[in-house]
Amino acid sequence: MTVRAAVAGASGYAGGELLRLLLVHAEVEIGALTGNSNAGQRLGALQPHLLPLADRVLEPTTPEVLAGHDVVFLALPHGQSAAVAEQLGPDVLVVDMGADFRLKNAADWEKFYGSAHAGTWPYGLPELPGARAALEGSKRIAVPGCYPTAASLALFPAYAVGLAEPDAVIVAASGTSGAGKAPKPHLLGSEVMGSMSPYGVGGVHRHTPEMIQNLSAAAGETVTVSFTPTLAPMPRGILATCTAKAKPGTTAESVRAAYEKAYADEPFVHLLPEGQWPATASVYGSNAVQVQVAYDEAAGRVIAISAIDNLAKGTAGGAVQSMNIALGFAEETGLSTIGVAP
Amino acid sequence: MTVRAAVAGASGYAGGELLRLLLVHAEVEIGALTGNSNAGQRLGALQPHLLPLADRVLEPTTPEVLAGHDVVFLALPHGQSAAVAEQLGPDVLVVDMGADFRLKNAADWEKFYGSAHAGTWPYGLPELPGARAALEGSKRIAVPGCYPTAASLALFPAYAVGLAEPDAVIVAASGTSGAGKAPKPHLLGSEVMGSMSPYGVGGVHRHTPEMIQNLSAAAGETVTVSFTPTLAPMPRGILATCTAKAKPGTTAESVRAAYEKAYADEPFVHLLPEGQWPATASVYGSNAVQVQVAYDEAAGRVIAISAIDNLAKGTAGGAVQSMNIALGFAEETGLSTIGVAP
Amino acid sequence: MTVRAAVAGASGYAGGELLRLLLVHAEVEIGALTGNSNAGQRLGALQPHLLPLADRVLEPTTPEVLAGHDVVFLALPHGQSAAVAEQLGPDVLVVDMGADFRLKNAADWEKFYGSAHAGTWPYGLPELPGARAALEGSKRIAVPGCYPTAASLALFPAYAVGLAEPDAVIVAASGTSGAGKAPKPHLLGSEVMGSMSPYGVGGVHRHTPEMIQNLSAAAGETVTVSFTPTLAPMPRGILATCTAKAKPGTTAESVRAAYEKAYADEPFVHLLPEGQWPATASVYGSNAVQVQVAYDEAAGRVIAISAIDNLAKGTAGGAVQSMNIALGFAEETGLSTIGVAP
Amino acid sequence: MTVRAAVAGASGYAGGELLRLLLVHAEVEIGALTGNSNAGQRLGALQPHLLPLADRVLEPTTPEVLAGHDVVFLALPHGQSAAVAEQLGPDVLVVDMGADFRLKNAADWEKFYGSAHAGTWPYGLPELPGARAALEGSKRIAVPGCYPTAASLALFPAYAVGLAEPDAVIVAASGTSGAGKAPKPHLLGSEVMGSMSPYGVGGVHRHTPEMIQNLSAAAGETVTVSFTPTLAPMPRGILATCTAKAKPGTTAESVRAAYEKAYADEPFVHLLPEGQWPATASVYGSNAVQVQVAYDEAAGRVIAISAIDNLAKGTAGGAVQSMNIALGFAEETGLSTIGVAP
Repeated sequence: MTVRAAVAGASGYAGGELLRLLLVHAEVEIGALTGNSNAGQRLGALQPHLLPLADRVLEPTTPEVLAGHDVVFLALPHGQSAAVAEQLGPDVLVVDMGADFRLKNAADWEKFYGSAHAGTWPYGLPELPGARAALEGSKRIAVPGCYPTAASLALFPAYAVGLAEPDAVIVAASGTSGAGKAPKPHLLGSEVMGSMSPYGVGGVHRHTPEMIQNLSAAAGETVTVSFTPTLAPMPRGILATCTAKAKPGTTAESVRAAYEKAYADEPFVHLLPEGQWPATASVYGSNAVQVQVAYDEAAGRVIAISAIDNLAKGTAGGAVQSMNIALGFAEETGLSTIGVAP
Repeated sequence: MTVRAAVAGASGYAGGELLRLLLVHAEVEIGALTGNSNAGQRLGALQPHLLPLADRVLEPTTPEVLAGHDVVFLALPHGQSAAVAEQLGPDVLVVDMGADFRLKNAADWEKFYGSAHAGTWPYGLPELPGARAALEGSKRIAVPGCYPTAASLALFPAYAVGLAEPDAVIVAASGTSGAGKAPKPHLLGSEVMGSMSPYGVGGVHRHTPEMIQNLSAAAGETVTVSFTPTLAPMPRGILATCTAKAKPGTTAESVRAAYEKAYADEPFVHLLPEGQWPATASVYGSNAVQVQVAYDEAAGRVIAISAIDNLAKGTAGGAVQSMNIALGFAEETGLSTIGVAP
Repeated sequence: MTVRAAVAGASGYAGGELLRLLLVHAEVEIGALTGNSNAGQRLGALQPHLLPLADRVLEPTTPEVLAGHDVVFLALPHGQSAAVAEQLGPDVLVVDMGADFRLKNAADWEKFYGSAHAGTWPYGLPELPGARAALEGSKRIAVPGCYPTAASLALFPAYAVGLAEPDAVIVAASGTSGAGKAPKPHLLGSEVMGSMSPYGVGGVHRHTPEMIQNLSAAAGETVTVSFTPTLAPMPRGILATCTAKAKPGTTAESVRAAYEKAYADEPFVHLLPEGQWPATASVYGSNAVQVQVAYDEAAGRVIAISAIDNLAKGTAGGAVQSMNIALGFAEETGLSTIGVAP
Repeated sequence: MTVRAAVAGASGYAGGELLRLLLVHAEVEIGALTGNSNAGQRLGALQPHLLPLADRVLEPTTPEVLAGHDVVFLALPHGQSAAVAEQLGPDVLVVDMGADFRLKNAADWEKFYGSAHAGTWPYGLPELPGARAALEGSKRIAVPGCYPTAASLALFPAYAVGLAEPDAVIVAASGTSGAGKAPKPHLLGSEVMGSMSPYGVGGVHRHTPEMIQNLSAAAGETVTVSFTPTLAPMPRGILATCTAKAKPGTTAESVRAAYEKAYADEPFVHLLPEGQWPATASVYGSNAVQVQVAYDEAAGRVIAISAIDNLAKGTAGGAVQSMNIALGFAEETGLSTIGVAP
């Protein structure tokens, strides 16, 4: 193993998923694991599925504990990453799984997060145009949000070749782990099983400006995004249903060709054969992305749908994939395209 | 009890839900129950939740068995209702829970169902403009599809007052009972639990022309509809997320006012207080519809969301409500706005 | 309506289910609804499925608020009922849905609940021998625990006729609503979906002495009980699998006969036809109990299995049924044997 | 890679899980994949989660197709393995994931399976006393049933040291994948979600004699088993709750010591720290077994509970583990103790 990695926020869902992946990563040794309210507890009590780490004990998230690692992953609440990152020095690779450094526009940050903008780091969605180049050798990585990962991969190929109008509608269903491990009444099993419900409707969800940023970059013009997230009765997975009016001259063939070209060489994004549609179960636990696209001639619309595992490709898998690029490892190291199903 | 009702197709999910409702309907006596492949079986083996009917035995679906009833409900596969209805005579109230008589445009029927159009009956969605008048005294009722019920109730108020552009995007999640009781591999519990997946994407779902019909009537102009149904890991419920570009001059207030006006006097449609959003769990087993609407100024869009129970208001409840109107009973007879939750 | 009922603890799952039932009870008018931390909130925000009560506001649980009712239901945390009941006067029917007055043996109470024993009230499981007589005219009712309801109804017929050895093994699976609405990490949807797990293993669950009390009374000798509760990934329902060694001379016929006799005239307990087994889905939302029993000759054991809805027959339905008896209403008033399925 | 493996029955759940494991097994190259009704289909359509094999096409299950492999895994319906195995020659390692060669007693086979007994092969549950020695170098392996795996690992340590009476009660909850991929009405998602139900009650389930065989061997006397399987609303996992009367002199300490000794050196069986109980979610997708045990002094019973993934350790993982032993690979090759959670 060639690098030693610390995980700040190891007791939550993102931290747990990251550890699941790092345990099988050939180039990574797992170093310090930290928590705040959970410091001092055995990991076996908090993450009982990570048997090889059961006897590890969480330490507090301090500069001393995080010092001496080659990589530090931050799985912290939004707004806390900047202060920790500052103390880590410029030679440590810091991978922020929070939102702090994703947005380029400070005004967007302030509007959606209500605090001062900390800055912008290279964006960890390697499949976007130019993203890999920015990640190579970088010592700072902003891991994308789970919804923007799903939605951007569904729609950017259409915008990249200019076949869709800049007015996207995105409706996404997420498993409950996306809402985190802090107990809240509406996240109780009794409430979520058997129920679909929306939240953050009307452009107020914090992932909206991130989608706009990604799709506008691909389109070369400002794309408006109507984004509606919904909570689905499953632990993991995002299904993003995305549509935009087709520009004149679009055909089913031109749509298909755009997606085939975009994903011909991508190791993790799988454009399904025509007629087969994504299912979140198929990417459960894997870093794969299933994508399918259709052209609805009667409605004049492109419909692109993606399925990801929100914790894997949507968070921890995307983090590892980006780390691999930044450190010069093979991009697929420690990552799998094999789901756990049924 | 003033009328005697037969149910053709009593072994399926729609038939079972209808019986659940008729068992507590003060004006209805349950008469013949028929099936085809299940004729001769005890209902207790097929619908074990309907304890009071456990010892009833299914009869074959024949004119002789269905004769002598005041009302005949048809819960048959698409395309079979016309032949049965013809044999029942003009004085019997025939309530078709299938698709056969929903569409006005014969070409739409032929395109989406691939057979000859049987005709058009009064449409059993009383909340639509003019629908109650057409149902009163009618001896024939076409019960709407479950998705069109959810989507039409979410969006028609916006079209009725002319505040939305005629280009609707509808993404709906349905519980698995909407796919029926015939065993198919993709409907196995092992496949659906933990998974969200789309189907019928790109304008090919049969409920699409029905939505277009309803929304166009409300708008007074042809509305195109991009409809994407998704299968959700729950037995019941539809959550319909619907959006259309707002016409110039639209404000959050004008949107709210349109919905308040549309639903001020409706017994089953509940426009939620601002800030509260629908959840399918809240209408589980009830005939209620939860609706909420938002205006996303940045995207220039109206977003309207509804939750229904696909088997209740979406099928059997809608059928009973329409029957009540046709027969002059109080519209709420035998129907409830109380869900079973959690 | 002939009585006015208050519900203390209207914001929780037991309180919500009780209101669902009282809303359709022909003899009950719903009076004050109280909560503690939720006092002042609209019920529509807390119990969005109870549409007819959406605009009711919760009041604090005080003697003043609860005064002036014929019936007061207490859905309070264990240990709080005695103090409230004392203030209500001897002419008010107090129905305690908590544990405080279930146990006859003060030492059991102290061992399992760790506080002083408040006393013993008539026990609200009418199907047990002698229970109805004790409930008639009573002004105090102790509603049983959900697990003891399921297990006692599964096993007491075997003990009542002396065909089972006094050493019962009970393994029960419960939906998550049994654990209440207070948010705890292990009850998050992310944790419970896809998982079965036991808790309170080894005789430490508080419902154990209540089962011993019921089964011993039926047997006329002390029955030991090994009880293991498990948490199942569903919102509602209890499936209790119960077994005891058969006494010499037992046959499949004698077992069947004992259960047929016990439940021949019970309105809510349905002994299934031979070969059909209970399912919690079949009693979802209903007050029915499905029971089936088998004699395993090779193992020399009687296996009795019951399914109930933990919130209905297991809590609020049992409360209403007992209230009906106490007040002289028809026992089935406001209660249904029709489940909501699928 | 040192061996080439064929999988007969690659379209089902057991076959799919096996391929998931073999894809990451360092010593195995995946050879022919066969099906019967599905021959000719792309694996990507049948097992969409196995992305690296998406373009493989199923072949028919014939001797010609299976020839030329070092290992042949049989995931066939019960009763079909013997005929296929005969054609494979004595030098090929045949791993039967069906039931055909599990039972030693021909009369048991005939009683429970209704056909002639094919024989007995070394039993693929390495944790049982003597099992590893029988597997080493063997060319035939009978993979245990999923329930016997869970139950035997929960209870055999108690029997091996003679602290439990030979009268075991086993109640187990299984995810639906245990029932296979053939579509049947009672396995529909609509039926299983939200429902717990028993089946095969009263000693008639085919896994009963296998449990008796394992526990009797450990006890050195005939153990009777009362086994009740239940279907739980989850895709994967078995939770087995097992109990037996303790022999005189048993203490909590002696119980704990027996389990600590039995599992001190087992790579896949994890005896949890005292106070922590198994959960199927913790072993989702892993080959790990979580075990916990308690002594209920009041009931005089040992209660042992295990959680496994029915498709992994319960079927395909157990098959790979046994293959590793038979072929002299490190036992843990290609297997993980890390679950996918939440």
